[in-house]
Amino acid sequence: MDKVSLQKVHNLIKPYIHRTPVLTSQLLNAICEAEVFFKCENFQKMGAFKMRGAVHAILSLSEEQKSKGVVTHSSGNFAQALSLAAKGLGVKAYIVMPENAPQVKKDAVKTYEGIIIECDSNIYAREIEADRIQKEKGATFIHPSNDDAVIYGQGTAAIELLEDYNNLDYIYTPVGGGGLLAGTILAANHFSNTCKVIAGEPVEVDDAYRSLISGRIEENETSNTIADGLRTYLGDRNFPIIKAHVEEIIRVEENEIVEAMKLIWERMKIVVEPSSAVAFAAVLKDKERIKNKKVGVIISGGNVDVSNLPF
Amino acid sequence: MDKVSLQKVHNLIKPYIHRTPVLTSQLLNAICEAEVFFKCENFQKMGAFKMRGAVHAILSLSEEQKSKGVVTHSSGNFAQALSLAAKGLGVKAYIVMPENAPQVKKDAVKTYEGIIIECDSNIYAREIEADRIQKEKGATFIHPSNDDAVIYGQGTAAIELLEDYNNLDYIYTPVGGGGLLAGTILAANHFSNTCKVIAGEPVEVDDAYRSLISGRIEENETSNTIADGLRTYLGDRNFPIIKAHVEEIIRVEENEIVEAMKLIWERMKIVVEPSSAVAFAAVLKDKERIKNKKVGVIISGGNVDVSNLPF
Repeated sequence: MDKVSLQKVHNLIKPYIHRTPVLTSQLLNAICEAEVFFKCENFQKMGAFKMRGAVHAILSLSEEQKSKGVVTHSSGNFAQALSLAAKGLGVKAYIVMPENAPQVKKDAVKTYEGIIIECDSNIYAREIEADRIQKEKGATFIHPSNDDAVIYGQGTAAIELLEDYNNLDYIYTPVGGGGLLAGTILAANHFSNTCKVIAGEPVEVDDAYRSLISGRIEENETSNTIADGLRTYLGDRNFPIIKAHVEEIIRVEENEIVEAMKLIWERMKIVVEPSSAVAFAAVLKDKERIKNKKVGVIISGGNVDVSNLPF
Repeated sequence: MDKVSLQKVHNLIKPYIHRTPVLTSQLLNAICEAEVFFKCENFQKMGAFKMRGAVHAILSLSEEQKSKGVVTHSSGNFAQALSLAAKGLGVKAYIVMPENAPQVKKDAVKTYEGIIIECDSNIYAREIEADRIQKEKGATFIHPSNDDAVIYGQGTAAIELLEDYNNLDYIYTPVGGGGLLAGTILAANHFSNTCKVIAGEPVEVDDAYRSLISGRIEENETSNTIADGLRTYLGDRNFPIIKAHVEEIIRVEENEIVEAMKLIWERMKIVVEPSSAVAFAAVLKDKERIKNKKVGVIISGGNVDVSNLPF
């Protein structure tokens, strides 16, 4: 993927996404002893950066593929993103979700006219069900993070951030499935000569951190983190990019995630989900490196149940 | 106050305030069946529109007055606003606060280097104490809402909103002390030919609503509303403006305030305080009037204890 191709991806999806604002806070700058630029994907359509990759994945299909629809398995933001992107492009979206997924998440998918297919609550059941939909309907499977078109789409948030601030020293993202991190790395490599990419990851689901050390994709034994968007695994499409180019993966504790989230809510007056706070928690833990530097942070999303907060 | 003078006020304070963004939401537009433009003063310095009036009030003083400092009584946003404005302008700010004011509010004032003078928790004690500071220090008293310079300053939020969207049919604000409402009315009258101003007010502290009916300033017997910024009274400087020009004051119940607040948090992904939600609750209650119209809403502030939410 070269710079021209990435630029084409951005131009292609622009009509279907928001160009989200970049916010700053004098107080958070003072705390970080750095200039911090928050790319606010919580203001993106459906409330998260996932819209970018979903739109691009669908736009990358042939007309015949589009006519038969798309299918994914997700109970999180990608389910909503694919549904909304598909709706806007006149394509059917089949969403395989565990039957015990929260009603609020099912309702969100229905709002965007996604077609929900319920399955048992385990990773094998959802893959079997997604396979069945592919065969029965001829729908194209789109993985939430381990898909080239999705990765390139996610990278457009960093392209915009670097267009607005072309002298960033670092960009911090969360890492879960790895789509955002890999896309951000591609964007930073092609749209900046100096900007390095660092990821934040919960200690509780530190598969990416351990994968970097072992050199192969590791799994998590638990998913016990408040950052529900990050309870997923790397894949063979994004891990090689991450392995080759990520500057560091910084692990953060649950209380650090909650503190970072509260700080953003109280000081910046924006609603961000725990996964977004993971990236800022990594910034707060990395003060020595960033001192007097210019730092971008991808605020990945803002979909959170405000009736059920950790503070 | 004519248009030229109001424009001068705006130019005067511009270097000391943020030009806050105007946000929109397709989903909230659909709910309201109108185009709604949210003027986000929750992103203002210190987190509320009060910064505008505080800056203007201090800039309106003579050099001799400035050298002796300013004094106000407030335990809310104006205490912080006057402290921060004074700090930026190299002026001392004496803040009379009840001794039982929440520590978090005292801390906020201290952060901005306001000098706290504690008093008993009743309206007479705070006035006596503020009088004493005026006499002892020669400080100039600045009322949080019933002061011409403050009123003109607060009106600049609406000036900016009308500069950005010059064809609004209505602007909704909350009404408490009346400074924001009166300032918004002046701005709308001079910067638009058509825009009318409507206020939202909690039923629990509906003194402004009753004052409009009786034609004289009424008081509240209770202050039992979640909208802590609106537990105050109109004054003889702002009431005549409101009486002459407000289109209507719409009263809202406590549960309507909470629902409006939750809707803004969840859908717009911004943190707003209950007083701001009062204005949007009035919009939601006024659907017939606004159908297919262009509607501005002043989101007055975002200072809220996120550990202690009503939902």
